[in-house]
Amino acid sequence: MRHRLSIAILALGTKLVTACHAFAAIPQVEQWGTFEVSLTGPTNGNPFVDVYLYARFYQGSVSKKVWGFYDGDGVYRIRFMPPAKGKWRYVTTSNVKELHGIEGEFEVVSPSPGNHGPVHVTNVFHFAYADGTPFRPLGTTVYAWIHQSLELQERTLKTLANSPFNKLRFCVFPKWYDWNRTEPLMYPFEGTRGNFDKTRFNVKFFQLLDRRIQDLMKLGIEADVILFHPYDEGHWGFDRMTRSEDERYLRYVIARLGAFRNVWWSLANEYDFMECKSEEDWYHIGEFVSKTDPFDHLLSIHNGYKLFNHTLPWITHASIQNGAAVENPNSAVLYRDAYRKPVIYDEIKYEGDIPRRWGNLSAEELVFRFWNATIAGCYATHGETYLSPDEILWWSKGGELKGQSPARLAFLRQVLESAPPNGIEPIDKWQNPEYGGKAPDFYLVYFGKATPKEWEFRLPKRALESGMTFKVEILDTWNMTVTPVDDLFVVEKSGLYFFADKDGKKVQLPGRPYIALRITRQK
Amino acid sequence: MRHRLSIAILALGTKLVTACHAFAAIPQVEQWGTFEVSLTGPTNGNPFVDVYLYARFYQGSVSKKVWGFYDGDGVYRIRFMPPAKGKWRYVTTSNVKELHGIEGEFEVVSPSPGNHGPVHVTNVFHFAYADGTPFRPLGTTVYAWIHQSLELQERTLKTLANSPFNKLRFCVFPKWYDWNRTEPLMYPFEGTRGNFDKTRFNVKFFQLLDRRIQDLMKLGIEADVILFHPYDEGHWGFDRMTRSEDERYLRYVIARLGAFRNVWWSLANEYDFMECKSEEDWYHIGEFVSKTDPFDHLLSIHNGYKLFNHTLPWITHASIQNGAAVENPNSAVLYRDAYRKPVIYDEIKYEGDIPRRWGNLSAEELVFRFWNATIAGCYATHGETYLSPDEILWWSKGGELKGQSPARLAFLRQVLESAPPNGIEPIDKWQNPEYGGKAPDFYLVYFGKATPKEWEFRLPKRALESGMTFKVEILDTWNMTVTPVDDLFVVEKSGLYFFADKDGKKVQLPGRPYIALRITRQK
Repeated sequence: MRHRLSIAILALGTKLVTACHAFAAIPQVEQWGTFEVSLTGPTNGNPFVDVYLYARFYQGSVSKKVWGFYDGDGVYRIRFMPPAKGKWRYVTTSNVKELHGIEGEFEVVSPSPGNHGPVHVTNVFHFAYADGTPFRPLGTTVYAWIHQSLELQERTLKTLANSPFNKLRFCVFPKWYDWNRTEPLMYPFEGTRGNFDKTRFNVKFFQLLDRRIQDLMKLGIEADVILFHPYDEGHWGFDRMTRSEDERYLRYVIARLGAFRNVWWSLANEYDFMECKSEEDWYHIGEFVSKTDPFDHLLSIHNGYKLFNHTLPWITHASIQNGAAVENPNSAVLYRDAYRKPVIYDEIKYEGDIPRRWGNLSAEELVFRFWNATIAGCYATHGETYLSPDEILWWSKGGELKGQSPARLAFLRQVLESAPPNGIEPIDKWQNPEYGGKAPDFYLVYFGKATPKEWEFRLPKRALESGMTFKVEILDTWNMTVTPVDDLFVVEKSGLYFFADKDGKKVQLPGRPYIALRITRQK
Repeated sequence: MRHRLSIAILALGTKLVTACHAFAAIPQVEQWGTFEVSLTGPTNGNPFVDVYLYARFYQGSVSKKVWGFYDGDGVYRIRFMPPAKGKWRYVTTSNVKELHGIEGEFEVVSPSPGNHGPVHVTNVFHFAYADGTPFRPLGTTVYAWIHQSLELQERTLKTLANSPFNKLRFCVFPKWYDWNRTEPLMYPFEGTRGNFDKTRFNVKFFQLLDRRIQDLMKLGIEADVILFHPYDEGHWGFDRMTRSEDERYLRYVIARLGAFRNVWWSLANEYDFMECKSEEDWYHIGEFVSKTDPFDHLLSIHNGYKLFNHTLPWITHASIQNGAAVENPNSAVLYRDAYRKPVIYDEIKYEGDIPRRWGNLSAEELVFRFWNATIAGCYATHGETYLSPDEILWWSKGGELKGQSPARLAFLRQVLESAPPNGIEPIDKWQNPEYGGKAPDFYLVYFGKATPKEWEFRLPKRALESGMTFKVEILDTWNMTVTPVDDLFVVEKSGLYFFADKDGKKVQLPGRPYIALRITRQK
């Protein structure tokens, strides 16, 4: 059997460790890192179609089947994200002799600092990394950033590095839409417009995509990869591929990206605006991705006008476009009840000034909506659409942020990080939506656009007992200040539904909008 | 074969036509009426358990299997609601010789006036009778009315006859709860508290229930029959029966009531407050009812704190308790999107003055919530909880209505009846929730608690064309007045999202809350 085999270990970022199999000690990779088997095989015919290749990875009774992919120039790769420490073995299967039956082993070691593993759902409505560290999504969108010039991509990364955002939604396919009428840097398929060969992937494009996902990983940003979208309208035709073209594409993307721990799958942006796909197509695609991905990445689908059925078992969380739902915490909570899954409002309209009603929110309004989502036990996603002579709107192309919301979202993120690890829950759902937190230890009370001058200290009764003592901080969520109240509040029962300060103490407030209280139990 | 057979045709109401099989001409029954086969059989042993009996009803290639039930004194009945006109045949099957193999035929004739057949779902979010007549639910609750004195039951019926309500939610089992601490008129099982024989139904109780459902039918009121509820807490133990007891009970209730066209099944009130049943139990019960009911009555389940998954296929509409969701039309619409089924807010808190936060709404607030639900393309249900020395609160026991909302709901019902038959739809979902109706022909614009003095004539663009002409009526939903505006409005495009009057005309408004506009296209 003639083959050349090399092992590449893609650690955090772009560092690539290659070891020659025959002479090196057993290779090491960190848990939730990327272990890559790189093989040399045929270049004739169409390797994307003619060759199938996968490996089984074993540890004890655990076995995972992972598809390989062709990366051009006779190179075939199989990428694996080890879920557990210790020794793992693998063996390949292929219809090509030189790629078949190749075996190896490697050692999975402790993750390096900053590697917390992939994110999964926890506590019904929330998220955590695989190592248990809470993950509180605070996303933004730059839908077409990987299709811009490399220089602009680098600027976008720099902006992200200095932003509060820990999740980025973006599309694999290029975007043809208002303010997006240029051809992309590269296409995902070989060929040119009008003449794509959808059986041959453009490996240069995908190599760049690999790198961008690792760039995001280095920044601690989850990559919410949008697999399909309607912003094509036949310009390239990536929105109207056949089922077998879709499946080949999905298998390729999953094989390439699935071993990167920061990947999430978003089947589509505005799925229902894709006129060439039926709802049954989406069921098929969703089940296909769920079945094909050996690493069980988070998986959802984002709507335009028609919500998807997020109760379906292969959907991990509800990714929802609906700006109206977060106009108050009272309505933001409703989808949680319907879906019993984490709710991320992945589009709530954008801070900006374009003449579209979905892209001209004030920064205040966008931040207000984030707080409503937060208090309701949900999450939201930022976007920015300020007009610009260069037509570089952050929302789609990246570059620099111009708006005033990101600083306030950084403040929100700090507040979230002070919350208990299980996530913010509504305290008295449907009754007193202004209270979020975790009774009886931690409360956020959000006054939104109201401008009270004082607040009677009272909390919904759940989990409270007489004598419990609380401190209060006044958060100005717009001016980003935290002002401790120089007093403690001791509660006793007050009517059927509340506990209140036993002496009727009140908290003096500044009489401005966008004020919240952070209330923490002392004893 | 020795048997006595009689045919009872339960027409509308309590009229009971009995024909002797051997001598009469072929019996006639109206479409969607109740054809009853009455047989005499054994009285020994336990007929409820020992005897099984069903009939198959045939017309052409259509066949329906309908379970019979024991009605005491040796009488067995099989009730059939014919879905189509013409000749039908039946043949019985039983493990008792004298009940087995009995055949007959009957003629189904046109329904009498007022008989529109059973209600089903139409147009995704709405309801219609079987004959196509729209049904717009406007329900109320008298949970335990059939367990009160006969005199009080009659008073309740009299009140209902003069009310706007066309749907009544009530429980089969008696209720043990605040303001409900008396023993019922009759129990559904033989025996007494602490000593019920759950294998023997109390036929006197069920005969009364039959009658009450027919009383409601006569009044044009749908009977939303609640099969289980938690307001028992072991006092009688009907909330903690075994699965086989539940099934026997359900089969009996469905056999008795299923042939009444105005029956809806509500699996439970506040299902999640029934601590002895798991969610899996409810799946089982729902599927059981769906499978057992040969007439496909409307079927849902009502929540306490935890919404049921109303996307499940056996659920016909979402029956939801959530007062907060209808505090504005913006949030009222959200469950529609999630469930893609009709949404009935079957509990939105009650008009009343009891010291419970679910029972002390003002009439204004309750009517406001109905309008929000309506504008959002949903439906709502009334309830009334005014304290009373006799502890007769309408909500549970019936009697007389004391509140101010029913008159306003009658006004709402009139407005609904002026709407197009397909039902009110949100006109510009998530964007301009104050518009409901059917573009471009009919609009309701609801201002809720706002008190505008004028309104610029403008409508969301959907289905509009320049030159379309509209008349406007000002509805004072609280004072129940309709004031036509003495002018016509001709629209032209106004920006990206609206059409407005071409001359910028405005509608002068009274500056009071609870105003709506009814806008009707003239040409």
